[in-house]
Amino acid sequence: MEEPVIVVVGDRTTADSSDKISTETASDTADSSDVQKNGKDKSHRIHSSPSDDPELQDEQLLLAATLVLDAKRGRNMNFKKDDKHVKSYQVYHHFFFRWSLYFFITVDLALALVENPTRKGWQWPLWATIFVELICISFFIYRIVHAAYVTETTEFWKDTKNILVISSIVLMLIDIIVFVIWTNNVEAPQRAIRWSRSLRPLFIVNFSDGKQVRRAFRNIRRTVPDIMNVLILFFLSVFLFGLLALKLFGKRQVLVYPNGHDYFKNYFDCIWDLYVLVTTANDPDVMMPAYDNSNWFALFFIGYLIICLYIFMSIVLAAIYNNYKKNLKNEIRMSVYGKRRRLASAFDILKVKRQNHYVVTHHRWCQFMKKVLPGKSMTQIELLMRVLDRDGHNCISKQDFLNLADLLNVELTEITDRQTILEKTFPRMYNSKYSKCTQRIVRHRFFRYSFDFMIFINAFFIAFDVDNADWFFLSIFTVEIILKMYTFGPKYFFIRFWNSFDFFVIGSALIASIVEVVIGASNEELRTLDILLVLRVLRLIKLFGSIQRFKVVITTIINIGPSIITYGGVIFVFYYFFAIIGIEIFHGKIHYYGYNESVVEEKNLWCGNAALKDSMFYRFHYCNNNFNDILKAFVLLFELTVVNQWHVLTSGFVMVTHKAARIYFFLFHLTCVVIVLNIFTAFILEAFILEYSLQRVPKIESQVEATIKELGLGIGGSKVRSKSVVGDTLELVDNEQLPESQDSQTDGDVSDTDSIEDFSNEKGLKFLLKKRSRKKVEVLLQQMFEGEIDPEDEGPSGRLDDLYPHDPLPRKMTLEAIT
Amino acid sequence: MEEPVIVVVGDRTTADSSDKISTETASDTADSSDVQKNGKDKSHRIHSSPSDDPELQDEQLLLAATLVLDAKRGRNMNFKKDDKHVKSYQVYHHFFFRWSLYFFITVDLALALVENPTRKGWQWPLWATIFVELICISFFIYRIVHAAYVTETTEFWKDTKNILVISSIVLMLIDIIVFVIWTNNVEAPQRAIRWSRSLRPLFIVNFSDGKQVRRAFRNIRRTVPDIMNVLILFFLSVFLFGLLALKLFGKRQVLVYPNGHDYFKNYFDCIWDLYVLVTTANDPDVMMPAYDNSNWFALFFIGYLIICLYIFMSIVLAAIYNNYKKNLKNEIRMSVYGKRRRLASAFDILKVKRQNHYVVTHHRWCQFMKKVLPGKSMTQIELLMRVLDRDGHNCISKQDFLNLADLLNVELTEITDRQTILEKTFPRMYNSKYSKCTQRIVRHRFFRYSFDFMIFINAFFIAFDVDNADWFFLSIFTVEIILKMYTFGPKYFFIRFWNSFDFFVIGSALIASIVEVVIGASNEELRTLDILLVLRVLRLIKLFGSIQRFKVVITTIINIGPSIITYGGVIFVFYYFFAIIGIEIFHGKIHYYGYNESVVEEKNLWCGNAALKDSMFYRFHYCNNNFNDILKAFVLLFELTVVNQWHVLTSGFVMVTHKAARIYFFLFHLTCVVIVLNIFTAFILEAFILEYSLQRVPKIESQVEATIKELGLGIGGSKVRSKSVVGDTLELVDNEQLPESQDSQTDGDVSDTDSIEDFSNEKGLKFLLKKRSRKKVEVLLQQMFEGEIDPEDEGPSGRLDDLYPHDPLPRKMTLEAIT
Repeated sequence: MEEPVIVVVGDRTTADSSDKISTETASDTADSSDVQKNGKDKSHRIHSSPSDDPELQDEQLLLAATLVLDAKRGRNMNFKKDDKHVKSYQVYHHFFFRWSLYFFITVDLALALVENPTRKGWQWPLWATIFVELICISFFIYRIVHAAYVTETTEFWKDTKNILVISSIVLMLIDIIVFVIWTNNVEAPQRAIRWSRSLRPLFIVNFSDGKQVRRAFRNIRRTVPDIMNVLILFFLSVFLFGLLALKLFGKRQVLVYPNGHDYFKNYFDCIWDLYVLVTTANDPDVMMPAYDNSNWFALFFIGYLIICLYIFMSIVLAAIYNNYKKNLKNEIRMSVYGKRRRLASAFDILKVKRQNHYVVTHHRWCQFMKKVLPGKSMTQIELLMRVLDRDGHNCISKQDFLNLADLLNVELTEITDRQTILEKTFPRMYNSKYSKCTQRIVRHRFFRYSFDFMIFINAFFIAFDVDNADWFFLSIFTVEIILKMYTFGPKYFFIRFWNSFDFFVIGSALIASIVEVVIGASNEELRTLDILLVLRVLRLIKLFGSIQRFKVVITTIINIGPSIITYGGVIFVFYYFFAIIGIEIFHGKIHYYGYNESVVEEKNLWCGNAALKDSMFYRFHYCNNNFNDILKAFVLLFELTVVNQWHVLTSGFVMVTHKAARIYFFLFHLTCVVIVLNIFTAFILEAFILEYSLQRVPKIESQVEATIKELGLGIGGSKVRSKSVVGDTLELVDNEQLPESQDSQTDGDVSDTDSIEDFSNEKGLKFLLKKRSRKKVEVLLQQMFEGEIDPEDEGPSGRLDDLYPHDPLPRKMTLEAIT
Repeated sequence: MEEPVIVVVGDRTTADSSDKISTETASDTADSSDVQKNGKDKSHRIHSSPSDDPELQDEQLLLAATLVLDAKRGRNMNFKKDDKHVKSYQVYHHFFFRWSLYFFITVDLALALVENPTRKGWQWPLWATIFVELICISFFIYRIVHAAYVTETTEFWKDTKNILVISSIVLMLIDIIVFVIWTNNVEAPQRAIRWSRSLRPLFIVNFSDGKQVRRAFRNIRRTVPDIMNVLILFFLSVFLFGLLALKLFGKRQVLVYPNGHDYFKNYFDCIWDLYVLVTTANDPDVMMPAYDNSNWFALFFIGYLIICLYIFMSIVLAAIYNNYKKNLKNEIRMSVYGKRRRLASAFDILKVKRQNHYVVTHHRWCQFMKKVLPGKSMTQIELLMRVLDRDGHNCISKQDFLNLADLLNVELTEITDRQTILEKTFPRMYNSKYSKCTQRIVRHRFFRYSFDFMIFINAFFIAFDVDNADWFFLSIFTVEIILKMYTFGPKYFFIRFWNSFDFFVIGSALIASIVEVVIGASNEELRTLDILLVLRVLRLIKLFGSIQRFKVVITTIINIGPSIITYGGVIFVFYYFFAIIGIEIFHGKIHYYGYNESVVEEKNLWCGNAALKDSMFYRFHYCNNNFNDILKAFVLLFELTVVNQWHVLTSGFVMVTHKAARIYFFLFHLTCVVIVLNIFTAFILEAFILEYSLQRVPKIESQVEATIKELGLGIGGSKVRSKSVVGDTLELVDNEQLPESQDSQTDGDVSDTDSIEDFSNEKGLKFLLKKRSRKKVEVLLQQMFEGEIDPEDEGPSGRLDDLYPHDPLPRKMTLEAIT
């Protein structure tokens, strides 16, 4: 066991205030902005060699702080470096404005719910929707103008995302004007179309805050050219097989679909049927007529599916996956280099020359950190310096300074006391013999085991539909919650996810059950609340999570959660785009009036459209799959994404409009299923494989984390355990899920608790280190890459975006690297 | 341009015959067999230090030759090393016996076509099938006894594949005896079941010649434990969602499927419906009743699909892919080390001490190579030595000797003359002015372009169904073939794949069309021959193959072709197994009698089974999907593999039997779709990514290839082009597809043809080097790995099979290696 190094902070400030003060102004801001563009030759620029520690101007500190904050958050806007613009830039990234942007984008997108055409009753008057939209657009205009103001002008106009935002805004305004004039003046037979609505999701992608989504889009954009080759060959082979099918089946009059439709009679239908076959949606059906005619025709379809489905579609996935990996590598490199360049620029502003080295002195550090972390106390700032300054010279070298962003990303926390409210209020009662005994029982692991077992039993009862026991389980679980809350105190009870989950589920179920009893009779509406009891069974997942062999899988799923939301954003962009177009084209063509033909009015028969009489679409009861409002459109698009029966859905909309409607559905399938969904699969493939490989890498941690552990200043983390806070938590916790940062303390035996007093001297400040399994893969990869490159390497010169258009050849091709 | 090094072979034999001859017998055979087990400590074993070149015994030469041939072919049987057994071992691997084995396995498998139950008319009498099967089994017994005779006894019984073969044979014999007794004596109401038939495909896997298929199976076996974890979690979540569905939908009486069936009414049906939903086969249908009831229920299904389909199924693929990569690496290592160990053992037998080095002398080399390549001339053997002996000492060191297997795998060819038959027979006419002119036209690339264009036009005519032009195209293409044959001569015409293809297609179409005209009237049967004309359009693929951007894709598809056949073998094994079981269970339950209810007899209505009345199965016209003979069973299993509508197919067989039939279909889906098909996808993913990465690696070639190129002894290959044969082929070939080995000569400009005479001095012997893009990925990876390890590294000691149960940690984890 390592003895934690006790750091006495707070008495250094005085020691450092003896630093002499000179008037030398370090590298000016214009210089540093140049330097930022090319980090290689900084040392040549600064000719003055100050031997002292001059007072920095406020605006220089602000600039440095802004650069460091940008590095910490991974931003990459290239803002103007003079004071006025830097201040404005900070306002641009202000919490309030960022959330306002999200709010207005949400409102703008949500307008589709209430705009005509939509569900009856939801519709708002025209002036209201246009008024709201104009407000949103105004905010977008303000936002883009603000961005233009703070960004370097040439950079601003080179950036595609700004151009896209501006043109979207212009197009939307034109559309609104045309639309208002049209509806007021022209007595047109045709309703005017608000086509610009489909542009709205572009704001999600193109406003510079949607970094993750934009990265996913960049990935798609870079992948498309590569898979184009595969897709062209794929379509070529579909066309060839189409010719074969036409010749083979087209002229046989006996061949006909069960519903009497033509069987491979004209070339375009051949292609369509074969394309649908590649999606497997019409699989045996398209073969059956030919197969019934001669069994050998099966060979045609089998051959086609093997080539076009199993081989080509796998190659599409391979091409996408390959690209994804390449892009991932580049993104990692870019973000690491981008971060370092910003930090280096900040360092250049703050540095002072000491014995032929440029360093940041303690005095400047304190000045500077007050700008970076305005709310933090002096003690915390001191502690941060102690961690960065590895060789203890009381000043920070450039190499140390480059770790600042990592350090700021480690949370600093205070160790507080752990008495429950009850203990404070009624100490005697709480600490009585019976109470202590109860607490010991609750903390014992058999308490947990027995309730896990109850969950298991409950699952069986639910499965075999024994309702009588509902009350029994409900009360048992309620008692469990009360006991736990009593023992651990509400604060520590709710800090654990599964406890909150239990509380919510059981609480709701309890209220629901009581309401049910009071109102009397099992109201069918309330049946839904039974589901809350079922949700409790989800706790079983937790049980599985504690079994080692399932850990990789569950950790992967948990870790990729946030990224899945990113991909959800990407898919939402496509969905919204297609949904708006679909609504404009297919709105009102198909309605749901139920299928009981004796009840439904005649004009409402066949989904309210006579064209659907006797169609598969109607027979399968698909009337509710329509484009009458945006939510229904989303559900329909999701069904199309799942692919099965998409040709039947398509056929319905073809019948009520025109065969050209197939183009819409084909394009949706190509973009959302073939491209986006495969990118999603590629993402999960890579995430899983990385998790799996990284678990076996002995050591990945940033320099900062290593130092924190060395100094014994961390809690959590995977290897070195701080011994301070364990004494009183060990029993308390007993395998309960601790808050993210602390739960790793319990997975080993810890013997002594002596050092706890020492730490309280330091006001109990501690860094919360994340366990490796809880880190995002991206962070791990960045740390790996930082470990590989030179500590001061800031990447090749030039704009980072242009650095890696293509993956450079790896340094050495080995069997290991290539497979 | 490099000048080719002219090697004068044939005058060395005399120079070398002056080697002194001693009587020292080199390491005896028993020793060398020990040595083979652990190649590390050979040098300690041989204490005698011969300074001369004793005559080796015939049996030693035979043993060495056998070891070398095993290394060349990648065999890994551990045979007994004494003379009698070595000879027997060579017989074991004799061409005739190997092909007999394939023949008898095929016959045994094909028996299912004619065994009861099968299609009417195909059935053989019982005694005939049993007689044939007994003959096959006899051969298998002979084969396994032979293997037991030549293999080390302990090794033989340790090998699972031998145990499996023996137990299969025993089980089959028992089954046959029981069956014969049963059918002859018991007046059973139940037909006896020949269950052992499903064991037949085990012979494909387990006889030691089915190396590729066995490797794929090993891969599956090793992958299953890893994906079990994912699958268990997956099923757990299906069970949880099943509970939710039961609570949500089970009690709502209004919810019912369109066909009136129960909707999530009992737990097992819930699980089944949700499992089918994960395969997407019942996608919107299973949701529609609940969605019609309340639109919010859609969230349940969307959530379920996102978790169980998009996340879990992707993770299954990821786990399989990860395992596949790991196994691939190990296979590569094992085969490289296995090859080296065998070669080292052979070297130990042949070696002679010269100046403190062990070498193989020229004399021994010639003796030895006569055993290895009995048919080859002395010149060829000399040439091989010249390539191996890189430093020109006229003897081969161990390091050189380890390259022998690679060298033997490079084809040695003679350059022959290229006069066409016509030119020889009628030289004057063939070389006349008009004839020369015609030839020049045919050889010109515009000739090819114009016919490619005609193919394009033809494709259009076929697509738009303009039949009138058929004769025009037919005659045009016939003329093309005749002209080409005239110019290039039949031999060089047919050597190119696309020419043979054209000849076959156009020839057949011509004959078909003529027959059609003679018989008169468009007989519908002959329509099928139109397809031959369509096949011609496939030549368009060749056009695309010459465009650089499509090359990776097409090269990949061509290169993975043979491996796809391997996977075809794997899938065949599963198909056969399931087909036999399916036939035994479901035979005769469903028949196809057509769907015209006014024509079909009453007892034959509803696929001949009243249970199918009004079923989806009948309404979709699936009666032909049944298990009445093995071919139909294969088609049905393929449909199940494609997944779509598999639940409808299942429901049909459930209706005519019992709900337990679902188990059969579920197991088939789990093994063939979830596991085998994902392994196939993993294989294509890896193959494509490797092709793509390896294309950019500047140099991967074995030492042997490098030497051959250095000596200018190669034709083909990627970099150095031999200039000898190009002079007269350049014009002749004109971008036509040359036979595999030669076509790379044409893709660069070649200027001088002087050296051709020099090479004819050497009887025109040349090594055929394959272009890199034509090599199998596995070969490339082996060469890469050989480049990485020490030239004499024979791997860690111990049995190679046990070496890499788990992937060792890579030497250094870099961002490059890990992504």
